[in-house]
This record gives sequence, C-alpha cells and structure tokens, in this order.
Amino acid sequence: MPDNHFADRLRARIRKTESLLAVGLDPRPLWFPEEVRKNYDMDEQSSPGEIARAVEQFDELILEIAADLVPAVKIQIGFYEQLGPPGIRVFRRTLNRAREAGLIVIADVKRSDIGSTASAYARGFFGSAPGDEEDPEVPSYDPPFPCDAVTLNPFFGHDGIEPFIDSADRTSGGLFFLVKTSNPGSRDIQDLETNNGPVYLRIANLLDEYAEERRGNCGYSNIGAVVGATQPEAFDILRNTLSNSILLTPGIGAQGGSSERLASLVDDDGMGCLVPMARSIIYAYRDQPEKDWKQAIRNRIHHWNRTFQTLL
Amino acid sequence: MPDNHFADRLRARIRKTESLLAVGLDPRPLWFPEEVRKNYDMDEQSSPGEIARAVEQFDELILEIAADLVPAVKIQIGFYEQLGPPGIRVFRRTLNRAREAGLIVIADVKRSDIGSTASAYARGFFGSAPGDEEDPEVPSYDPPFPCDAVTLNPFFGHDGIEPFIDSADRTSGGLFFLVKTSNPGSRDIQDLETNNGPVYLRIANLLDEYAEERRGNCGYSNIGAVVGATQPEAFDILRNTLSNSILLTPGIGAQGGSSERLASLVDDDGMGCLVPMARSIIYAYRDQPEKDWKQAIRNRIHHWNRTFQTLL
Repeated sequence: MPDNHFADRLRARIRKTESLLAVGLDPRPLWFPEEVRKNYDMDEQSSPGEIARAVEQFDELILEIAADLVPAVKIQIGFYEQLGPPGIRVFRRTLNRAREAGLIVIADVKRSDIGSTASAYARGFFGSAPGDEEDPEVPSYDPPFPCDAVTLNPFFGHDGIEPFIDSADRTSGGLFFLVKTSNPGSRDIQDLETNNGPVYLRIANLLDEYAEERRGNCGYSNIGAVVGATQPEAFDILRNTLSNSILLTPGIGAQGGSSERLASLVDDDGMGCLVPMARSIIYAYRDQPEKDWKQAIRNRIHHWNRTFQTLL
Repeated sequence: MPDNHFADRLRARIRKTESLLAVGLDPRPLWFPEEVRKNYDMDEQSSPGEIARAVEQFDELILEIAADLVPAVKIQIGFYEQLGPPGIRVFRRTLNRAREAGLIVIADVKRSDIGSTASAYARGFFGSAPGDEEDPEVPSYDPPFPCDAVTLNPFFGHDGIEPFIDSADRTSGGLFFLVKTSNPGSRDIQDLETNNGPVYLRIANLLDEYAEERRGNCGYSNIGAVVGATQPEAFDILRNTLSNSILLTPGIGAQGGSSERLASLVDDDGMGCLVPMARSIIYAYRDQPEKDWKQAIRNRIHHWNRTFQTLL
C-alpha cells in the first residue's frame, strides 16, 4: 500500500482537527443567506448560470468556515448537476478549492455500473494512471473531478465494484460503498432476509474481502462503507463485520440518529468513522436568524466537535 | 395519464421504425473512425476539451445514421463525465440533437439517492414543473439534460424511487429501474434468495405496484425495468411479474444473449421491450475494416431490424 494511503491521510486530518465531521455541501440556492442572495438574481426567471454563480460563492464561504475545523467535506453532485453544465463547472471548482484548503474531499456521486462504464466513471474522479493500458478507450489525463474518495452503489456486484477498486488502489483513493442507508425505504431491499442474514450483511461480507487486503498503516482500509446511524442493531452487526472499514454514518444530525452511538463506532484511537452532516450544519442559521450566519455555522460545528473530542 | 405518455410515444416510434433497438452511445475516442480521428489531436497530451469535440462529431454522425432506423438511443453519461465539464456540455448537446432528430432519448445515468437529492437529480433530467412547490430549493426551469427517460438504481427503496416517479409523472417521462443486470456479478446481490423469491423478484414486485397505476393508452407503464437477457429463467419470471412494464434488455448483442428470447418478451402487438446495443452497433466497422464505416453500422442495424420485424 502506498505511503499516502487514503485511511492514513484521513487519520492525520482527524488528529489535526480533533473532529469526525464531514460537512455535507448540498447547495440549495433558495436557502442561502442574504449575504449571498443579494448578489444574484434568484427568482423564477433566473438562469442556471446565475444560480450556479451563487452556489460557487456559497461553497467558497462554507469552505472558509470549515477548512480548519473539520477533517472532510462531502460534496453532493446532484445539487450541481441539476444546474446543468454551469453547475458541473462549479462542482469541479469547489472540489479543487476544498482540496487546496487541505480538506479530505468525498465526491458523493453514488455511481454504479459495470466494466468499461465503471472504469469511465472511475477515471472521472481518480484520473487514468499507469496500469490503465488494458483499458485504452481514452488517452490518460488528470481527473476532471479530483477528490479523495467517492460514494458508490454496490448493486451490480463484484464486476461493478472492481473497476472502481482498481482505480482507487492506483491513485490512493478511497471508496465508500452503500451498505445500509439511513432512510425508511432501506428496508425494502437492504433488509430482506436471506438464508444467511439480511442483504446488507451479505454486501458487507462481500466488501470486507476487498477491505481486508487494502489496509493502511493505521489498520483501516481504503474500502469504506455507508452505514446509516438510525438503526442500532444493524449498525452494531455491520461495525463488527466491516472491522477494517471506515464507516460513513449519515443520520446523526438532521435525521435523528443518536450521538451516543458514536462511542461504539470508533476504536481506542478514535478512528473508524466519519460523520456526514449537511443541512444541520450549512443551514444552521436558518433556525437562528438573530445570529451572524457564519457564526451560527461555526457554533454548530463546535457543538459537534466537543462531542467528538470526548472520543478522540 | 397525459396524452403524451412515455409508453405511447415509444410505441409510435417502434411502429414507425419497425425496430426495437436502442442504439447505445458509449463514446470511446480511441475507437473512433479515421474520418473523425483525423480532425483532432488524440494522443497522450490531448486535452479533455479536444477529446470532447471529437466525441461531439462522432455522436452527430451516429445520430444521422440511426435517426430514421431505430426508435431510441441510450446515452451513457459516464463516457462524457470522464472528460469533465467539456464532456458534460457535449452530453447535453447530444441529448438535444437526439431529441430534435425525433429519437426517444434514454439518459443512462443509473442515479440513486433519497429525498431532496433524488429530487435534484430528477430536476436535472426532467426539469422542475408546477407541483414542485413543496420542494422549493431552486427556482423552476427547463431541464439542463433533457431526455425522455432515465435509468435508475432502486437500492434505496421506496423513498429513493418516489421522487423520480413524481417528476416523471409530471413531465411525461419514463424510468427504467435496474432489476436484474446482465453481468456475472449480478448474482452477488440481485440473486440472493429471500423467504419469498430472489432479491430481483422482490424489487420487481415493489416496482410493479407503481407501474400498474401508470399505464398509457397502449397498456404499458412509464415505469420500466432493466432486465438482462443473459439469464433465461430470471427473464421469464420477470416478464410475467412486470407485465405492465417495458423491459430494457441488455445482453442480446455483444454480451451473447439470444435473439430468440425476444419473441417471449413482446406481446402480440410487438410491444414490451427495447433492446439496447452499444458497441456491437456503433463500432461495427472495427471488425469490418474493408467496408465504409457508416455502411458497416447501417448494415448491422438492418441485420437486427430484420429480426425485430418478424416480431412486430
């Protein structure tokens, strides 16, 4: 495993910031603070380009606030894609700015496909690198959407997973596969009982085989998993099964999962999970309109960081 | 259901072209014909912008060839996304050109997420429309990536599915959910046996509830399903279960599924499936270098259309 293994880089950032927070960037233009909204036309006739410029300014301000306080950001591509090409250009620039600020950057894209299509997606986020000769459909180049890790959907099985793993291995990237999501509908497919445990456990077993042989110096793998914090039983089973994986655990903030669960998620070193929170952080000012909006966000981050510091 | 129901529009195109083919646009620049390659620098130092221009020219030529011969195109976004913002701009222009040519356009994006993120993705492909007031994070506008249908991954369950259905219903769009994919790894998750049939059947049961109440004049729903043609047993079960759905059936061309299977896929009217083929069509010239490259593609389309005409 290379010196700059994803899990080791993440661990260094967690140590430096004493935080487990991945601030979620889900830019919703009509929720932006007046300081941003006043600079742009934001009404029914606004062009996607104008809205995308507002998104870029908002992102820049959030990154300034968060850069020294948290280890990571998780940037949700759907909120950029809905604005078309201007939104995608801002997505790229926000990824770059977040990396320049020293943050671990997770592109929340939940991609899934097989074979050469999976390889194409992987090149978009990790670039093509020596070793790609067997897959020569495009010349090699730097990734257009540079990031430290991506979220992925494992539904296709091993031949949908492996092209992403190959690409992440070559570029010291990280992968977070959906295993058990935090929404009520996760029971429809993920909770179905098989002859050997629920579907989510079978996915975890599949992933753990890859994770085990890809551990960094800190003991954790570059193969992580998304495990919602809203269902405690599933959570404990998956923490045990995915013992080599960093868990990305949505559902602690706005969705109501308990922060007390966190103690069981991390090891004695404070490693083992990363807690994504989006709207409860970046729109913290919406339920505290009397406060300076940036200070409201900072206060909310500090609130959570005090919880994390008891674990680290 | 509106007059311009997705299934009815598709049926009209199938009748007009006497074909069930969805030509797959998976642009692989290093496989392009000399007629395109000679206009662009395509080497290790090429910029993504230069490669994207070559993709655009190739797409335009393929659409010219296919427009009057087939009902639909399926455009795989991963091959554009890997080129960054210039690739995404070409994706948008190719979608627009394909629609102007009268083709039914399927954006093969396999998106999956929940709640407001799923709504954001849906707005990207179908736009926001009256009825979106409860989800006011962005002003309303036309879709930046206009298409007739998208492919989706159902892994999140009902609350990951419904935002896309709401959006498709309002805009007469179609949805093709992954149910049983054509790759060997599909057994890892999709084939797991539950107490009530394999996972893929449980997904089909879930989708059929939505499909049943969304049928057009032709009897088919705007809720379709991706069902690989490579496993005959699964195929027959799913054809019966998803009796209201148009099936998108990969695996007939390059992946080796049998065209004889097709007869069991369509009703007496020839409706019920759409057959995506990508590389076996758009790179048909690669194994016939002696022929005019456009003619090689046309011949391959005609070859398949003769098979389809026995069914229609």
